[in-house]
Amino acid sequence: MSTSWSRWLGAEAAAREDAGLTRRLRSRPVDDPTIDLAGNDYLGLARSPVVKQAAADAALAWGAGAGASRLVTGTLEVHTDLEDEFAARLGQPSALVLSTGYHANLAVVTALADRSTRVISDAHIHASLVDGTRLSRARLTVVPHSDIGAVADGLASATAAGERTVVLAESVYSVLGDAAPLTELAELCEQHDALLVVDEAHGLGVHGPGLVASLGLAGHPHVVVTVTLSKALGSQGGAVLGPTALREHLVNRARPFIFDTGLAPASAAGALAALRELTARPELAAVVRDRVRELAEALGVAVPAGAVLSVPMSSPGAAVAAQQTAAERGLYIGCFRPPSVPDGISRLRITANAAIPAHAWARAVATLVDLVEEHR
Amino acid sequence: MSTSWSRWLGAEAAAREDAGLTRRLRSRPVDDPTIDLAGNDYLGLARSPVVKQAAADAALAWGAGAGASRLVTGTLEVHTDLEDEFAARLGQPSALVLSTGYHANLAVVTALADRSTRVISDAHIHASLVDGTRLSRARLTVVPHSDIGAVADGLASATAAGERTVVLAESVYSVLGDAAPLTELAELCEQHDALLVVDEAHGLGVHGPGLVASLGLAGHPHVVVTVTLSKALGSQGGAVLGPTALREHLVNRARPFIFDTGLAPASAAGALAALRELTARPELAAVVRDRVRELAEALGVAVPAGAVLSVPMSSPGAAVAAQQTAAERGLYIGCFRPPSVPDGISRLRITANAAIPAHAWARAVATLVDLVEEHR
Ligand SMILES: Cc1ncc(COP(=O)(O)O)c(C=O)c1O
Ligand SMILES: Cc1ncc(COP(=O)(O)O)c(C=O)c1O
Repeated sequence: MSTSWSRWLGAEAAAREDAGLTRRLRSRPVDDPTIDLAGNDYLGLARSPVVKQAAADAALAWGAGAGASRLVTGTLEVHTDLEDEFAARLGQPSALVLSTGYHANLAVVTALADRSTRVISDAHIHASLVDGTRLSRARLTVVPHSDIGAVADGLASATAAGERTVVLAESVYSVLGDAAPLTELAELCEQHDALLVVDEAHGLGVHGPGLVASLGLAGHPHVVVTVTLSKALGSQGGAVLGPTALREHLVNRARPFIFDTGLAPASAAGALAALRELTARPELAAVVRDRVRELAEALGVAVPAGAVLSVPMSSPGAAVAAQQTAAERGLYIGCFRPPSVPDGISRLRITANAAIPAHAWARAVATLVDLVEEHR
Repeated sequence: MSTSWSRWLGAEAAAREDAGLTRRLRSRPVDDPTIDLAGNDYLGLARSPVVKQAAADAALAWGAGAGASRLVTGTLEVHTDLEDEFAARLGQPSALVLSTGYHANLAVVTALADRSTRVISDAHIHASLVDGTRLSRARLTVVPHSDIGAVADGLASATAAGERTVVLAESVYSVLGDAAPLTELAELCEQHDALLVVDEAHGLGVHGPGLVASLGLAGHPHVVVTVTLSKALGSQGGAVLGPTALREHLVNRARPFIFDTGLAPASAAGALAALRELTARPELAAVVRDRVRELAEALGVAVPAGAVLSVPMSSPGAAVAAQQTAAERGLYIGCFRPPSVPDGISRLRITANAAIPAHAWARAVATLVDLVEEHR
């Protein structure tokens, strides 16, 4: 490689190595016996027979890919069926499906915000919403995590300045698993004529049609929702849900929609089947919520709103050692260390899953209690 | 919707409507009889039996989704198999697969460039590379399309300023179908110790392993390649190919890789089968190149380097009318008007496809000659 570039890549790699922060990919075989308590397929729908079959059937019927941008010849009925189902199940006027949840977040922020817009963003917001805001070049106010007072102040000064304003939140935050104060945020946005964009990546499925719908905020004139198809829906893709005028605006203006190939038919059909499954089988969401509560109580940590459990550890080393021990005992768990944690505290990130057989789940809980005790 | 936001969306929609630029989605049924001369599935692999079957089998074996970020538990052997195959077939040391071609381009630019980097970008570059550059906050020089002298000047002044530099090009440009002067660009980058990033979205498949490999530039120390799995490979996804040190850097630093769920198994397996097909059946690339030459000659326009044919029209209205007539006669063709054209000229965009039966292709050519005559 070119001298200046290979020297720079080498220096970056050495700095990571010195800090003990090098990340490596581990490839999983199809028959991996390790129990996955790190992924986001919370209801186990990715591997449920009806979802897998729907994905396979769609690949055979439609082909492996959509073949073109949605705006050219890449909009297939499997996309519009999924959009209709999303709108109906989540109580929204319309939905637009994109290729990833990342694309959905980039799309909604960049199509709404520009240099003259104010974006008020929670400090724990996902990378895709951060990137969308950067791309939009909007005026940015980052508020402390779930600090309603700070959002109110930000809205008041944006109103005073006459700025059109977007507030960004996740319904359930991905690292800590805590819920946003959505009702209060929606009220504030109503008072200040602002728009609340709620990322339901970790709320959908675990809370049935999502926290926004469960709280009666679906269709609220000041609330727009984004979802990913890649977590509780066990597939791939993303969607933006809200007023029809917003959908039309995205179709015409959102670059990550316009300049991207339509979602693969198998992924769209898999998500559609999963959406139907989670409605037909409400016990799945109940099981995952029961399990996360059981595990939180066993580990002596607060019960989270989502299926993600955060266990603070004394040091980055302790977190890594616990993760390593878990793998040796047949469990994948996540581990977050600086700089990927919003507050500098190293932690284990453990996700509950409705599809693990009851006896294996019970064993996993006992194993986790032991190893957290050993390493905390 | 909130007053200020709905008023703004309404004004935007009215402005589009007045300019005759409103875009609407058209949903295609599974048995759509219209011949698709607008999509990018140039070799017809999306619907080829082995590709469809590979995608379906992977959905059944692995599930509909990867379930987690590639860095957590979302790296499956189907991803690493595809990466090995890409590296081998395209003559590159390593490959990293991402969820879309858009993600691949965002990833490579944002992980390489920062405020102190110079990016020299061709004026016709794809939206995803433009967005990656914006996100990176790099110092940007946009050069006129395929203007080697301007690239040389930009490199000279970057070198003088001691800036690490990235040059962005597409091997075959998506709107005009013309090829970049890759050999000259690689030489210039070598002289100035810069890195050339070549987007092979429209070169891969149509030129076998791509134009970079065909020109003997694969593995060139100053050349890095991105591809999409969603065009000639008939699937969904993207990849970055280059030195192993670059792959490791992306794994550790590229936000659109780290904070995104792994590519759906069906899409990875579909692309893997397509990659093998296009190697096993070199006649597919030969057919599509013959067809685009035949069509260009019939329409009296220059023969493009890729499978995309650009036919300049006298006005936006003429282009739209021709597209409408084509649809009435059973052909989907594309139409580009300002502001989506780099040079302000309205044009038809017609793509050749190796999978259309010979008699249907012959009829399509005759139909296109007639309707361009009628509307030009
Ligand atoms: C909160 C949140 N939003 C968006 C995304 C992106 O979704 P996707 O993986 O479908 O791109 C993720 C994780 O991947 C997430 O955790
Ligand atoms: C040149 C070019 N690069 C990248 C992309 C993005 O690829 P994908 O559709 O896989 O996101 C496209 C089109 O979609 C393209 O035309």
